[in-house]
Amino acid sequence: MDMIGKTAGRIGQPSQDLYRIAQKRLDNLTKPPGSLGRLEEFARRLVAIAGNERPALDRKVIFTFAGDHGIVDEGVSAYPREVTPQMVFNFLRGGAGINVLARHAGSEVVVVDIGVDYDFGELEGLVNRKVVRGTRNFAKGPAMTRGEAAQCVESGIALAEDYAKRGYRMFGTGEMGIGNTTPSSAIAAVLTGKSVAEVTGKGTGISDETLKRKVAVIDAAIRLNRPDPQDALDVLSKVGGAEIGGIAGVVLGAASNRIPVVIDGFISTAGALIAYRIEPKTADYMFAAHNSVEKGHRAMLDAMGLDPILDLDLRLGEGTGAALAMLMIEAGLKIYGEMATFGEAGVSDEIVN
Amino acid sequence: MDMIGKTAGRIGQPSQDLYRIAQKRLDNLTKPPGSLGRLEEFARRLVAIAGNERPALDRKVIFTFAGDHGIVDEGVSAYPREVTPQMVFNFLRGGAGINVLARHAGSEVVVVDIGVDYDFGELEGLVNRKVVRGTRNFAKGPAMTRGEAAQCVESGIALAEDYAKRGYRMFGTGEMGIGNTTPSSAIAAVLTGKSVAEVTGKGTGISDETLKRKVAVIDAAIRLNRPDPQDALDVLSKVGGAEIGGIAGVVLGAASNRIPVVIDGFISTAGALIAYRIEPKTADYMFAAHNSVEKGHRAMLDAMGLDPILDLDLRLGEGTGAALAMLMIEAGLKIYGEMATFGEAGVSDEIVN
Repeated sequence: MDMIGKTAGRIGQPSQDLYRIAQKRLDNLTKPPGSLGRLEEFARRLVAIAGNERPALDRKVIFTFAGDHGIVDEGVSAYPREVTPQMVFNFLRGGAGINVLARHAGSEVVVVDIGVDYDFGELEGLVNRKVVRGTRNFAKGPAMTRGEAAQCVESGIALAEDYAKRGYRMFGTGEMGIGNTTPSSAIAAVLTGKSVAEVTGKGTGISDETLKRKVAVIDAAIRLNRPDPQDALDVLSKVGGAEIGGIAGVVLGAASNRIPVVIDGFISTAGALIAYRIEPKTADYMFAAHNSVEKGHRAMLDAMGLDPILDLDLRLGEGTGAALAMLMIEAGLKIYGEMATFGEAGVSDEIVN
Repeated sequence: MDMIGKTAGRIGQPSQDLYRIAQKRLDNLTKPPGSLGRLEEFARRLVAIAGNERPALDRKVIFTFAGDHGIVDEGVSAYPREVTPQMVFNFLRGGAGINVLARHAGSEVVVVDIGVDYDFGELEGLVNRKVVRGTRNFAKGPAMTRGEAAQCVESGIALAEDYAKRGYRMFGTGEMGIGNTTPSSAIAAVLTGKSVAEVTGKGTGISDETLKRKVAVIDAAIRLNRPDPQDALDVLSKVGGAEIGGIAGVVLGAASNRIPVVIDGFISTAGALIAYRIEPKTADYMFAAHNSVEKGHRAMLDAMGLDPILDLDLRLGEGTGAALAMLMIEAGLKIYGEMATFGEAGVSDEIVN
């Protein structure tokens, strides 16, 4: 907890002065004021976050954390757990959705085994930060110990620190873990105060009957484990997941290094919400990539005051939405850095009506 | 009208067989079926439009048509008309929003003078297709003759034909013209049947008072000119604009060459709606880039059954939304072409629940 507390304590606010300076430049570019809408918002925020009037976004990385979940024993997922390691191999070969979309967005992908129930041994390209071999079935007791949960968050922080030092200037989050909408819904219910039914959806595509079981399993598990909504690490350990903890750590590490972090979909947002409850200033560094199809996503975004960038009916995870959103955020920075001002272009900025 | 009629007559339907073939491949990629949402829709449509199982999108171009509007004499715009040629010079120097965002999207920009009230002479990089030196003030009579309106559409068709022959595989539309939300609102009202007040907004940022005048001017102009809603060319000539006609032509030319065309915002959509009323099959080739802030945009999209891709509070025009949307559409095609199948990746596609 010491590393987590220290990291959280280092998080400051984005520069309000630079926010104003950026706004002034945006208003002076050859377009009606505000007419590039959210691209202008992205530019202002990036400038204020970087604390630098002309920030560069040259190196971007998406952290895709993989973990397994004991809760799948309750029959809450559409796919068998073998798919988690199979998809990790797919990531490493470059054939998954996140590989394609990260290439499209000019971002690297770092695949992290933080809790997969499979022994990969030494594997080229896989970052081994395994804390657990799958979480325990939280229908029967806590998913992780408090120490394991902290270790997951610390692993995320350490990765963020490392990539910040290496000059990466934008992070994205992603995950892979069969069953991981279940802990995410549990976190959403505990931390937003909504009912489990309100924040539980069909994940990768379960039937109505399985959805009913999923809601009942989560409800019972919350009653059994009694996670303390005032203690985010307690929630993460009792009804969370390893990859969700890793994402929370990346968010904390990003914010403490003044690096913007693009939060992917439902599961990533559960991780971001854990980070937010540890330190609310983290929200100033977050960009919500998209509005997931998964029910319950919006409640978590609202709890952090985030407005999603895209709405493309995505529900894959892995960081795919984050990759796409990076293209829009970067567009904002390019507008800011590359457009001519009225003076440079000899365009009248007189408003006649 | 002959060229317009012939072009419209050549427009066929995208291949229903290829739509199904594309769907099958998408369902076989390493992701839950449908989990990439609209990206999958884009891929299916691109395959069906191209009539080719593996279409390439290597060359993209956005046509930005510039024109002036006599209706600005009625005090309906926030900016003086000199801004139209000033912005054309800005486009040619690469300093405008569309230049920045087209570069970001890997698209070329072709700037077309179709109706600017300024003599550019011979100018490197400017395509001269001038039909009028600004339209006439349609508060006092038709904006253009029927022949002029047809010539604008034909110019768009000819440009589309030319770029299709040169191997461009995706088109975008854009425009610049001080005052051009006014003819666009007039077209929207006449062709959707909504009241002028329902489809008229603040354009680049007029006051409430000017908005009231704008609505009154359009209302009176429609009563005066009596455009025939069953005759799109009549509507274009009486209350339209040259750049709107050019865009309608690009849409017709794109569809007749089986090339997808990304429709930018409010004004571009008015042009697309003219094309749609000439030949409704054009809608199968359109992608609506974004949901403009401009009131009345949605009514026109609904009339064509189009669902906008982005919603970023944009209201600049020029083709800026089209450039951004191209990045999302291309993402769909990359997913389709580059992701591994379950078989290739050794990932289980067994659904257990």
